[in-house]
Amino acid sequence: MAVAINIVGAGVFGTFLRTVLAPFCLFSEDADIAILAVPFDAYEDVASAHAGKHLVNVCSVQDATNSICLRHSDRVTGIHPMFGPRSPAAGRTSIVTLTNSCSDEVLEVFGSISSLVEFANGERITGETHDRMMAKTHLQVVRLADKINAIVADASDIPDECLPTSFKRLKAMAEQFLDMPPGTKSSILANSHWSSSAKLGGNVVKLKV
Amino acid sequence: MAVAINIVGAGVFGTFLRTVLAPFCLFSEDADIAILAVPFDAYEDVASAHAGKHLVNVCSVQDATNSICLRHSDRVTGIHPMFGPRSPAAGRTSIVTLTNSCSDEVLEVFGSISSLVEFANGERITGETHDRMMAKTHLQVVRLADKINAIVADASDIPDECLPTSFKRLKAMAEQFLDMPPGTKSSILANSHWSSSAKLGGNVVKLKV
Repeated sequence: MAVAINIVGAGVFGTFLRTVLAPFCLFSEDADIAILAVPFDAYEDVASAHAGKHLVNVCSVQDATNSICLRHSDRVTGIHPMFGPRSPAAGRTSIVTLTNSCSDEVLEVFGSISSLVEFANGERITGETHDRMMAKTHLQVVRLADKINAIVADASDIPDECLPTSFKRLKAMAEQFLDMPPGTKSSILANSHWSSSAKLGGNVVKLKV
Repeated sequence: MAVAINIVGAGVFGTFLRTVLAPFCLFSEDADIAILAVPFDAYEDVASAHAGKHLVNVCSVQDATNSICLRHSDRVTGIHPMFGPRSPAAGRTSIVTLTNSCSDEVLEVFGSISSLVEFANGERITGETHDRMMAKTHLQVVRLADKINAIVADASDIPDECLPTSFKRLKAMAEQFLDMPPGTKSSILANSHWSSSAKLGGNVVKLKV
């Protein structure tokens, strides 16, 4: 019998998860497994509302959200799907940061739509090491997107036929960024491994790592 | 009979021009038409060495280079091909910034490999208006490329399977930037319509336009 899952959150990512997971589980609001497809700021409230259930943390940052979930349940699976609606179907991965004795059935479902990644450079990934990696990658993309969008907006008066090829590529990238849902963006920015003094203006991107 | 052209410069762009123009002209070092496929800093010397010839300015900035060429010849065509070896073959454009009574044969050759653009927003493009447009586009890409390369280099220790999709896109873009020849980059940075106080760090990209 297919595992029953409650996907909490009907934003862009929750809706996407419902679509891609549909072949591999049953959806029920009474399910013992609750996937928290909500922004970082909602984790405390949503975890509290589903206290005692098997909580599945799919947030873009994992360390603080794992801790929040563990205050409301002793069964928490931390897993960050590294893809969204516009990602290519091939090469999708999900990073596992926390498991419990009941995690296998959750990992099996996510393993059906992506490759599970539990180790990086020979070490088991934790919420903390996950967030350090995201501070260098996911977070940098979000910060850069603002700059790219500003550059593209500033050139909105330039006719297409006067744009160099390299700028056309940048413009195409900006259009992809516009696709990132605000909830995902705010979760990515909640990364604690980010020095407030980090500047894109310098030659070196300084991070608290 | 095909027009004879001397392409001066055997860097990435000069070599590329030789390849794409081959079907449409003859190459001869004695030709009356000299295409100056050299970096900005070499324009004075190369224009001087071909004084009196029909000088074709294909530099990434056009205003100062048109002036330099006009000091050495009364026949100068200013034309900026907005593409390079890795640009898609479709949709290529060349911006015309200066013509003379002999320009037609040069424009015909470049018109064979691209669409010629002489007007922007209803006004004839000049070296100056060309450079103002490039300050908002080409120049911004070059400046941003440094940031993107720094971000990608900083994440070189992160395994591929731990990279979010958006970061993979950024990494692919960085690889395309690496393709930009140093001579082209230095020419783009010679743009005079660029305030030294312009900062990518702010919300607005300030330019002297």
